[in-house]
Amino acid sequence: MKKEFDRKIGQQAIMYAFAEEEEEASITSELTRKNWLYAKGKVGSMELQKIVAAIETSAKRQWVVNPELYREMHALYHAIIEAMHGVTRGQVELGGMLRTAGLRFAIVRGTPFENVEEGEWIAVAVYGTIGAPVRGFEHEAIGLGINHI
Amino acid sequence: MKKEFDRKIGQQAIMYAFAEEEEEASITSELTRKNWLYAKGKVGSMELQKIVAAIETSAKRQWVVNPELYREMHALYHAIIEAMHGVTRGQVELGGMLRTAGLRFAIVRGTPFENVEEGEWIAVAVYGTIGAPVRGFEHEAIGLGINHI
Amino acid sequence: MKKEFDRKIGQQAIMYAFAEEEEEASITSELTRKNWLYAKGKVGSMELQKIVAAIETSAKRQWVVNPELYREMHALYHAIIEAMHGVTRGQVELGGMLRTAGLRFAIVRGTPFENVEEGEWIAVAVYGTIGAPVRGFEHEAIGLGINHI
Amino acid sequence: MKKEFDRKIGQQAIMYAFAEEEEEASITSELTRKNWLYAKGKVGSMELQKIVAAIETSAKRQWVVNPELYREMHALYHAIIEAMHGVTRGQVELGGMLRTAGLRFAIVRGTPFENVEEGEWIAVAVYGTIGAPVRGFEHEAIGLGINHI
Amino acid sequence: MKKEFDRKIGQQAIMYAFAEEEEEASITSELTRKNWLYAKGKVGSMELQKIVAAIETSAKRQWVVNPELYREMHALYHAIIEAMHGVTRGQVELGGMLRTAGLRFAIVRGTPFENVEEGEWIAVAVYGTIGAPVRGFEHEAIGLGINHI
Amino acid sequence: MKKEFDRKIGQQAIMYAFAEEEEEASITSELTRKNWLYAKGKVGSMELQKIVAAIETSAKRQWVVNPELYREMHALYHAIIEAMHGVTRGQVELGGMLRTAGLRFAIVRGTPFENVEEGEWIAVAVYGTIGAPVRGFEHEAIGLGINHI
Repeated sequence: MKKEFDRKIGQQAIMYAFAEEEEEASITSELTRKNWLYAKGKVGSMELQKIVAAIETSAKRQWVVNPELYREMHALYHAIIEAMHGVTRGQVELGGMLRTAGLRFAIVRGTPFENVEEGEWIAVAVYGTIGAPVRGFEHEAIGLGINHI
Repeated sequence: MKKEFDRKIGQQAIMYAFAEEEEEASITSELTRKNWLYAKGKVGSMELQKIVAAIETSAKRQWVVNPELYREMHALYHAIIEAMHGVTRGQVELGGMLRTAGLRFAIVRGTPFENVEEGEWIAVAVYGTIGAPVRGFEHEAIGLGINHI
Repeated sequence: MKKEFDRKIGQQAIMYAFAEEEEEASITSELTRKNWLYAKGKVGSMELQKIVAAIETSAKRQWVVNPELYREMHALYHAIIEAMHGVTRGQVELGGMLRTAGLRFAIVRGTPFENVEEGEWIAVAVYGTIGAPVRGFEHEAIGLGINHI
Repeated sequence: MKKEFDRKIGQQAIMYAFAEEEEEASITSELTRKNWLYAKGKVGSMELQKIVAAIETSAKRQWVVNPELYREMHALYHAIIEAMHGVTRGQVELGGMLRTAGLRFAIVRGTPFENVEEGEWIAVAVYGTIGAPVRGFEHEAIGLGINHI
Repeated sequence: MKKEFDRKIGQQAIMYAFAEEEEEASITSELTRKNWLYAKGKVGSMELQKIVAAIETSAKRQWVVNPELYREMHALYHAIIEAMHGVTRGQVELGGMLRTAGLRFAIVRGTPFENVEEGEWIAVAVYGTIGAPVRGFEHEAIGLGINHI
Repeated sequence: MKKEFDRKIGQQAIMYAFAEEEEEASITSELTRKNWLYAKGKVGSMELQKIVAAIETSAKRQWVVNPELYREMHALYHAIIEAMHGVTRGQVELGGMLRTAGLRFAIVRGTPFENVEEGEWIAVAVYGTIGAPVRGFEHEAIGLGINHI
């Protein structure tokens, strides 16, 4: 992995969301080497709030954020909503517009800037399908939200 | 490359947008093998319309769409705007909100569904940075738009 | 009916949505003469997804779209959502904003462009009232969505 | 013209925007009979503010609103912006998204409710085409905004 | 209270929403002196429609609007929705985005313009907190909507 | 000033934006007592980016944020855009919708939460008028954005 990619917290979150087994191990060992935190999960729902909740729960349970600090949950929440803009493309809504999403998500927390004073940032990547509540009547969607934490 | 990934026109467009030289060759040879069309380019601007125009121009010049057919340009246009929702996350606007974007983009046109009657679809992936018009004061952003064509 | 109007798939969909009995017959015979497909219906709801579903169901049952093809349902879905933007004017939402809509809708599928290669397009017109969930506390609203199919 | 249609200020504004010569005369004589005010015009632009300005200017010059009263200009302005939502379907923007609109518009001011205490309302209808800044690469769009005045 | 502030219907609505007991008396006596109407209330909910309903109900019960006139309810409704834009900042949605709001609101109806022909206007101010459905994980938010009535 | 108000960073930013001379001194001495940072300014423009720039410049010049740190500028930027949602109510746009704003703004940086680990937050309050580019054809608007920093 190239040095430059090293800093790309967003691209790493996306690759981690894309990754299947063996690739996953290579990504997480790289993230661990840098002392970055990460979490991953899956969620499918017509209710957007369930997707937000699933990402928050994974981030908390996998120790990417401190669930006791509003500051961290606030940073995470806005990163999630920004990521969902990429998935929903216009209105951050699913069931109310008669559509459903099946998503994998990855959360990465690290220090993407060279200047150490820039501190920690969090990236939320979501990737999967969005479409009608009919099997196969769906296409891919992606989203990425990045915030200082 | 796995069979399943084969059909993921969106993920392939994203990987192509991410790709540097050698990886790029492996992706394009795979796309060529499937007789899918593709184009790639870069654009940086505070004016969103210049980004739309740059993607349209690449798609036309690299023969991914037929510039004589409104039908195809209409499909492409909506895929571009949907992709820009992921980049702008809320308001599809750059300079008017005092921000600028530097993006790589990839366009892929192919047949992602098993059922041949589903015909051709187009995916537009954009990836890069968005931020203040100050060097380094920017973070990553991604977007993906998919449409039938 | 003038030649020029002949091609105006959107205006025809609107006139069809407006039409009462005898006018309706004159519009549908004209559409039939051109071999265009059409459907019509009514729906009233505080839930936007029910309106989307009602329009989709009419389009399927009245053979305007092929319900087996995602390609066609995707074109229709986006035309419906675009039409609902005209009705909701800002946020594609009804009950969540304490408002309800009573709509007639018309769907027309045809070839509005002279160039035969432009192929088929679909127009969804919705017209009716939007307002508070109180009888008479409502005003008119219209929307039109057009997509290639 | 049926009694019921009589009250439909929005539909009348749309029909007036659609109308060519002779139909126009029949609509305006009907509006005059009811002592309703009306104005009509055309505008084409990539700049949304020019469209807003053109509609405002017509409404003022054709005595539909009193240009000295902010109250009336405020009612008109919001009706125009609501109408433009139907045309732009998502983001009230034209050139910044590399698209242009060519519109006819009609403004009608009257008393659409039976209860005289409901007073005057204003309807702004816009109808025309929206699309790429390339001749013929455009489709129809409509919008309607209604406000109390 | 200065003369100039006298006319600021929006600022007065905000100060009234902020006010606790004694300050409240000073504001309402000032509003009464000018023959302006006012109402105040509190509401907490994850459902935006409940907030809209609570503000409408207070305005009706405290005689700020005439509940029999759609004209007045229409003016009020749009002022409420505009105020909620300030609270929600992007998407006028609460629970669907997994957030909740606890708000005080004030409604003021008066004549903020020197020119008497400008007539009556209505201001809706909302102030409180928005955040996760977790106690203390919330920050302040404000909104103001103003409309002619 | 009550203890509880002490923590209300948003309300303090709004009161500071509202304040004229003597009140201003009482607010700033209170903010200074708590070791909170603050800045204030005025800006009028039809161009939203000029308003964003003016607030950023004031925050930098009056030492509320460190202009060398993207982290801080990122927090400030999002707080500004959130505040502008309250002012623009729907579309974060001014001139493109033929409207202009004249605003006072206040920025406050402090520790609004009792738990010291919640650290610093920033509040941006904007208050003034929005309307047609015609003197007096405007009404009040407010906005508040709050972010962790």
